[in-house]
Amino acid sequence: MSGFGIDHLPYGVFSVAGGERRVGVRLDDAVVDLSELTGRPEFAQPSLNAFLGLGPEVWRQTREELTERVPDAPSVPVDDVVLHLPFEVADYVDFYASEHHATNVGRMFRPDQEPLLPNWKHLPVAYHGRAGTVVVSGTPVVRPQGQRPGGASYGPTERLDIEAELGFVVGAPSPLGTPVAYDAFGDHVFGVVGLNDWSARDVQAWEYVPLGPFLGKSFATSVGAWVTPLAALDAAWCDLPGQDPEPLPHLLPAVGPPRGLDIEVEVELDGEVVSRPPYRTTYWGPAQMLAHLTSNGASLRTGDLFASGTISGPAEDQRGSFLELWWGERFLADGAEVVLRYTAPSTSGARLSLGEVRGRVEPART
Amino acid sequence: MSGFGIDHLPYGVFSVAGGERRVGVRLDDAVVDLSELTGRPEFAQPSLNAFLGLGPEVWRQTREELTERVPDAPSVPVDDVVLHLPFEVADYVDFYASEHHATNVGRMFRPDQEPLLPNWKHLPVAYHGRAGTVVVSGTPVVRPQGQRPGGASYGPTERLDIEAELGFVVGAPSPLGTPVAYDAFGDHVFGVVGLNDWSARDVQAWEYVPLGPFLGKSFATSVGAWVTPLAALDAAWCDLPGQDPEPLPHLLPAVGPPRGLDIEVEVELDGEVVSRPPYRTTYWGPAQMLAHLTSNGASLRTGDLFASGTISGPAEDQRGSFLELWWGERFLADGAEVVLRYTAPSTSGARLSLGEVRGRVEPART
Repeated sequence: MSGFGIDHLPYGVFSVAGGERRVGVRLDDAVVDLSELTGRPEFAQPSLNAFLGLGPEVWRQTREELTERVPDAPSVPVDDVVLHLPFEVADYVDFYASEHHATNVGRMFRPDQEPLLPNWKHLPVAYHGRAGTVVVSGTPVVRPQGQRPGGASYGPTERLDIEAELGFVVGAPSPLGTPVAYDAFGDHVFGVVGLNDWSARDVQAWEYVPLGPFLGKSFATSVGAWVTPLAALDAAWCDLPGQDPEPLPHLLPAVGPPRGLDIEVEVELDGEVVSRPPYRTTYWGPAQMLAHLTSNGASLRTGDLFASGTISGPAEDQRGSFLELWWGERFLADGAEVVLRYTAPSTSGARLSLGEVRGRVEPART
Repeated sequence: MSGFGIDHLPYGVFSVAGGERRVGVRLDDAVVDLSELTGRPEFAQPSLNAFLGLGPEVWRQTREELTERVPDAPSVPVDDVVLHLPFEVADYVDFYASEHHATNVGRMFRPDQEPLLPNWKHLPVAYHGRAGTVVVSGTPVVRPQGQRPGGASYGPTERLDIEAELGFVVGAPSPLGTPVAYDAFGDHVFGVVGLNDWSARDVQAWEYVPLGPFLGKSFATSVGAWVTPLAALDAAWCDLPGQDPEPLPHLLPAVGPPRGLDIEVEVELDGEVVSRPPYRTTYWGPAQMLAHLTSNGASLRTGDLFASGTISGPAEDQRGSFLELWWGERFLADGAEVVLRYTAPSTSGARLSLGEVRGRVEPART
């Protein structure tokens, strides 16, 4: 019941006692060194990128092989290893795909307007974030400084927040000039990670017009240490809540309705669960986001990361940011620790757990 | 009078007749292979990143050595080599630092409001762009497709435009959590490139609220093949046009006024010069942009690229985009070729030329 059974087998990068970084796979509470087990050079690497770049046929064959061999392989207890950022992030794109989140935020940031802007139901709104400040779960988050609204002073943010999201990791690249169709999602996306898009709301509110969020987000984005392959999530696909108007054809599959993922999220603050956002309530689905991202011909690279945006459900205890949970009245204090946990149905009938996303707030370095 | 005299010595990556990529330096119309000349491993690389990461003391010593040795070194005519993207782009940030440009665009995109938004004179507004679609001068630009305003259809952009900008290339990294002060600019920034931030204005206008430009920009950004070291631009520093209100202290040098660069730009369309934007008229200076970018503690990586945003001067024939030059009435046709040229004063008294930024528009792949 660890959530890391043989039906899961997520990939990560680990080291033991200051040794070299290696690609490993997790089974229950143990890590198997794939470089030792298979002798394959793509696993004797400090990141998953070499393996990710080999493409879906190799991913499939490798999973088949590991499902047979890992249970009997030599392993190290997960408590005895250091986990590192599992992949080198190429470009990082953050979407805004939850209708409940966009509505809540629209109400707060633009109280005099309709909360959803006219484009919102026509395309999955997104922006590029900072790839170089994506950090692995467990990395402390230094409270960022910035300009307060009005620009009168510069100092530590007074509105430090989280965004509970799901991240998608691109393995196989695509050429410049050619969009990736909805149905080609699985040819390019290798797997998923939990993701916390830390946000400084005072900085963001002052800076974000007209070119979008920048320093309010770029100080840190935490991801889980284990990348769960899409192949482990076959049982998690579900219907989206419903889209009206119907999206344009390039945002739809050739046959049948667009799909979402039934992944449950838990937001834990200082040891207490404060929210349970359900990803299945998100308006835009993963393959729609990828089709949109490449619809102008933008190429994909191995290591590209794109995320759902804050996952908020319709209920008050399903909101994925403290901004929404506490409606702007309270934010994170120094020393606060946030852990995001994610579970999904598995083909085995059990539930699998994605790698947790943990971060503690350190005081600003003034 | 090539603009590539001994006072310049820009770095690039080249190959000859399908051979391996190597770091070279340009003198007049010839390229010197630095891997052959020096035997140093950081030059036997397909990008400048290894050299850039060595930091300012190595950059200085290398320039001193090359100034002595390059005039007598074996070389290849520049017409006989293929030039490649000179550095691997880590994160790409695009600013919006020209007051004339921001005012022109504000008038067109938000005709019912003040053209400059309240934050504009308090901080250099910026957003992250797509690093993976930065291409070298000469790469064709496929006309992107996208959603037209209103979301009723998806097809080739009808408003393809350019943005004539100056790009800054980061060499030495900085640690997460620690801002880079105004005065540390030269400890981190290695040099400059010309940059064309291709833009699809119809796509951009529809998508950009509230999270900023995304697909309207992410299909291609062209940069020059030659990176001009800051050391070659000592004579180009100049006063900024003037800032009111005075920026907060973290956006200023410890002593004296903030500085700009006196670089002249020419925009050539199908062989004819149509505009001459002067970078010295830009409101926010380069070291202010870097101080802002890192003011929240965001780290720098070798290969980070940040750009000025469109350079537009006060006069009509000094505008750096066709949107402004033709006031929204005409855009780029298939087959159009745009070349951006840049010159700067040099300590020798002559003018140096940055590497040109060339791109031809190819029809959409529908």
